[in-house]
Amino acid sequence: MNDTQSWVNGLAGALVDVSERALQYGDGLFETIRIHHSEPEFLERHIKRLMAGCERLKFPAMDWSLVRHELKELAAQHDDAVLKLILSRRCAGRGYGPFSGQAVTRIASVQPLPEWPANPGHRGIRVRICDVRLAVQPLLGGIKHLNRLEQVLARAEWDDPAIAEGLMLSGSDRLVEGTMSNVFLLANQVLITPDLSKCGVAGVMRSVILDLAESLGIATEIRSISLDDVKTAREVFVCNSLIGIWPVVSIDDFGAFDSGSITRQLQAALAECDKAGDGNWYSS
Amino acid sequence: MNDTQSWVNGLAGALVDVSERALQYGDGLFETIRIHHSEPEFLERHIKRLMAGCERLKFPAMDWSLVRHELKELAAQHDDAVLKLILSRRCAGRGYGPFSGQAVTRIASVQPLPEWPANPGHRGIRVRICDVRLAVQPLLGGIKHLNRLEQVLARAEWDDPAIAEGLMLSGSDRLVEGTMSNVFLLANQVLITPDLSKCGVAGVMRSVILDLAESLGIATEIRSISLDDVKTAREVFVCNSLIGIWPVVSIDDFGAFDSGSITRQLQAALAECDKAGDGNWYSS
Repeated sequence: MNDTQSWVNGLAGALVDVSERALQYGDGLFETIRIHHSEPEFLERHIKRLMAGCERLKFPAMDWSLVRHELKELAAQHDDAVLKLILSRRCAGRGYGPFSGQAVTRIASVQPLPEWPANPGHRGIRVRICDVRLAVQPLLGGIKHLNRLEQVLARAEWDDPAIAEGLMLSGSDRLVEGTMSNVFLLANQVLITPDLSKCGVAGVMRSVILDLAESLGIATEIRSISLDDVKTAREVFVCNSLIGIWPVVSIDDFGAFDSGSITRQLQAALAECDKAGDGNWYSS
Repeated sequence: MNDTQSWVNGLAGALVDVSERALQYGDGLFETIRIHHSEPEFLERHIKRLMAGCERLKFPAMDWSLVRHELKELAAQHDDAVLKLILSRRCAGRGYGPFSGQAVTRIASVQPLPEWPANPGHRGIRVRICDVRLAVQPLLGGIKHLNRLEQVLARAEWDDPAIAEGLMLSGSDRLVEGTMSNVFLLANQVLITPDLSKCGVAGVMRSVILDLAESLGIATEIRSISLDDVKTAREVFVCNSLIGIWPVVSIDDFGAFDSGSITRQLQAALAECDKAGDGNWYSS
């Protein structure tokens, strides 16, 4: 981790107090932001999701202009990299609560982009269906909180580097998301992505793609998705803020999917859209 | 938190690297141990649960004699206090996995005992039913891992100091546990406690009480429990390693329970049992 730079509450440093509740209970939130040409991509969408998460976890009021300013300043020092921000609750005393004298610690870090399989955006990726099922918890559904053991256990299921991602189902065998990504299917010319109100993380790139699809006149639907829906889909892709859009060419022994025209159309639109600003197409 | 003493990997200090996965993902385990007369109570049971948790989370092999030695040494410096140990996974690189070069960081701290309502073990406590429901996740059921947002949100539901604990139900309205305790009912002369294979933490004090009951000839049952079972119970109590056994006198508007003879019998047996060693009665 020597090539990581970290800041705690705006000051360079990689150490935090062991009383941080992110460490004690996973009591916090995070964002993973792509820095491109020294700008944090889709910054306002990341901030918006953090705000929603803070409200859900009953965090105290925060100075969002300070957060925005810090993230831009960190991004300005790098060309192309990963910017991660963790917000951790601090309280006086021990135990789950009540929250006496609560405050929020900001932990930011910048790392090089991960090494990915060759040209996955063009060639597509192989994925698997994970054995780990996601638990249903509507109170945490959609937000990017720090209770991530399900993802940790799911990602530990395979170490074959030829498998780029694992898809996760709920306990009732509905498709939810990838371990580190959201999932879209194309079926009957409709772009479909799972409903994440009961579990899963509603990704920033997912919201971007839904908006891009709308601007391109592609019909979209957010709903419950079965494994059969996945297998009969025409196109399948995964997405997140770092990777953009990766077409899926096979799922376990099942495939190959057409890395087809709608996926390519969305990739082209993503490459062209204004990622640094809040252009007019930015609606959600 | 000024009256907290902390050690990281056996060295005095309260700082950890922000790359610790306990902080990044809640990827770790913890134990809360009562120090009494400078001894860590029920140490072997705590170690045993940690071992089970490490296996479930696929932690690398650990030197348990070192862990045991450190906990005893920390306890020896205090008369009556709370000893908490967090085990956090460390890995090279970012992302959920795979676990390259994984190691475990030991974070220990000692704090004064919390301030409790007056004489709760004798007078009993008032509890409430929490609105937050526990999600069903058999992969994590029973172990004391660091993904504790459900407990954090449940404990945030009330700040009336007259309410000492909140009981938590599963999504299907079965009783699971308290936010910081396990729960027992007495019904038809059988001591009943919820099955925790799908969610909840299987407490060390719970295991002690099950063994004490057996040694006293009290019938026990581990099973699914409804709210009606709770309301028709003759005696109800909560327990954990710090508080021992607290009789419950009322639940929301419902009560009062008899802080009855079996609860008193178990409290007396707990007061007398060998908490420092692994006496013959120690069976599970």
